[in-house]
Amino acid sequence: MKILITGITGFVSSHFLDYLNVKEPGAEVMGIARNMDAFDKSRYHNLKITIKLIDLLNKDAVGIIISDFEPEYILHLASVSSVALSWQTPLESFVNNTNIFLNVVEQVRAYKIKCRILSIGSSEEYGEVTEAELPLTEAHQLKPVSPYAVARVAQEMLSAIYAEGFNVDIIITRSFNHIGPGQLDKFVISSFAKQLVAIANDDKKEKKIITGDLSITRDFLDVRDVAKAYYILLKQGKKNSVYNICSGKGTVLKDIITIMSRQLNIAIETEVNPQLIRPNENRKITGSYQKMKTDFGWQPEIPLEQSLADIIGYWQKK
Amino acid sequence: MKILITGITGFVSSHFLDYLNVKEPGAEVMGIARNMDAFDKSRYHNLKITIKLIDLLNKDAVGIIISDFEPEYILHLASVSSVALSWQTPLESFVNNTNIFLNVVEQVRAYKIKCRILSIGSSEEYGEVTEAELPLTEAHQLKPVSPYAVARVAQEMLSAIYAEGFNVDIIITRSFNHIGPGQLDKFVISSFAKQLVAIANDDKKEKKIITGDLSITRDFLDVRDVAKAYYILLKQGKKNSVYNICSGKGTVLKDIITIMSRQLNIAIETEVNPQLIRPNENRKITGSYQKMKTDFGWQPEIPLEQSLADIIGYWQKK
Repeated sequence: MKILITGITGFVSSHFLDYLNVKEPGAEVMGIARNMDAFDKSRYHNLKITIKLIDLLNKDAVGIIISDFEPEYILHLASVSSVALSWQTPLESFVNNTNIFLNVVEQVRAYKIKCRILSIGSSEEYGEVTEAELPLTEAHQLKPVSPYAVARVAQEMLSAIYAEGFNVDIIITRSFNHIGPGQLDKFVISSFAKQLVAIANDDKKEKKIITGDLSITRDFLDVRDVAKAYYILLKQGKKNSVYNICSGKGTVLKDIITIMSRQLNIAIETEVNPQLIRPNENRKITGSYQKMKTDFGWQPEIPLEQSLADIIGYWQKK
Repeated sequence: MKILITGITGFVSSHFLDYLNVKEPGAEVMGIARNMDAFDKSRYHNLKITIKLIDLLNKDAVGIIISDFEPEYILHLASVSSVALSWQTPLESFVNNTNIFLNVVEQVRAYKIKCRILSIGSSEEYGEVTEAELPLTEAHQLKPVSPYAVARVAQEMLSAIYAEGFNVDIIITRSFNHIGPGQLDKFVISSFAKQLVAIANDDKKEKKIITGDLSITRDFLDVRDVAKAYYILLKQGKKNSVYNICSGKGTVLKDIITIMSRQLNIAIETEVNPQLIRPNENRKITGSYQKMKTDFGWQPEIPLEQSLADIIGYWQKK
């Protein structure tokens, strides 16, 4: 297997490479990243990994790498994927989602590379939804309400044009919140876990954490289930098809803190900081993974409690 | 009036400046263009026009101009607006529509300039439509089917985000085919007129022109009616509202050749070149301008015959 992975040093990639390391020993992997400071190649000893440090906005550099390597598969993970950040720096968010994707598919087209591309999208594309519309299926209308979401919808529209108009083999996901060991603490669950571990390790610390709105419900999927889904889509996905990648279950944020506190055997108070509450946020989001199940028999395998225990383990080791 | 016009040396801009020259004597106009080879400033003697030759993809340069000039209005006409070209160079089409627009609105936001922006979109955004859905109203769903159309939809989605999320005062059009004197001969009606004038002027020339599919129906609006509509929208448009700019009438291409041949008093044969026929093209497109009429009393004033006579006059003078 010859696969190009953009954003190779990121959270999802690390778990995808773990999976590939077992499933595809001997695979040739070309990675694109901005730097490899935190990347540990030895973790994936069965893979032949090369990394190029370029900016994906540099289309010529992207073209050189793609034409030299001639990948059979491209897993396009690179993204500035924060909704909050997209409100602060909307231009950077847009170009580092839509334009970097366009550079990749355009170079595949221009160099006439025969390869399959997995274009990662987001549940944020659905935007404004009512509870009656849950769980969201792929047929649901897209009403993006943030700069990040617009960038992802534009990426998806471009995917369809390149697939239908230029016959580029692209498959599209709408991925819901994923969680797991190794995720940066700017993401909510990882941030909670890190704070709770710090409290559990220090008797003198106040047993309280500051949070945003804990009453909202989200669809959390373990990153290792995500990695497996992406592998299946690369191998078996249908060209120009869109797939939800989600757990199908709604979990209230508050319950996540309760579970982790129990796992750490501590009692915790929470205090809401109104500044951390986002305006216009959906109260509840859940997705349907029926299409992934019907088409490929994929379904989530790792229970939430296991994911949370592993995230705690990660921060305890750190 | 202080107005910034991007694409100031283009076809639509020339007619908008004609209108401004009468309507707003003394207006200060800052123009952005790539070159001004074909620009005749003396035509607009009542206006104070300055032009900066920059690439709109250079966001820093855009920011300098906007912050120095502090426009009250921005008319964003610059666009690589060819559907055909967007299939040849999709990346260039995307960045020279979506990204140049994003650079303009982002600099307005970043420098906190209080101004009103008119974002020009296209009827191409509607994409695939059936005859039963005509005439198209602004409520119609967007199903873009070309790289150019996707770029315009992305621009429109970004307009909504900047208007709602960042309180930037943006108004949006979906403009249908416009025609008039001065249009480049890469556009169909102007191309027909140029060929017919050449035939009328030369007895020895074969009385035949080569065309694409002449049986399709389009909604053609005189560019001078377009210019007036844009002026009205800049003055009175409702923030974050979308307006069709169209004639409301469908005209079969074949009939346009008939009218112009009669005006030139020549008999003409046509021959279809199958290579000029676009795949997946809609047979018929017409728009509804009811919203423009209800909200502002705007309606098309120049009859098709007049537009065609003026286009012929333009090529006769050339």
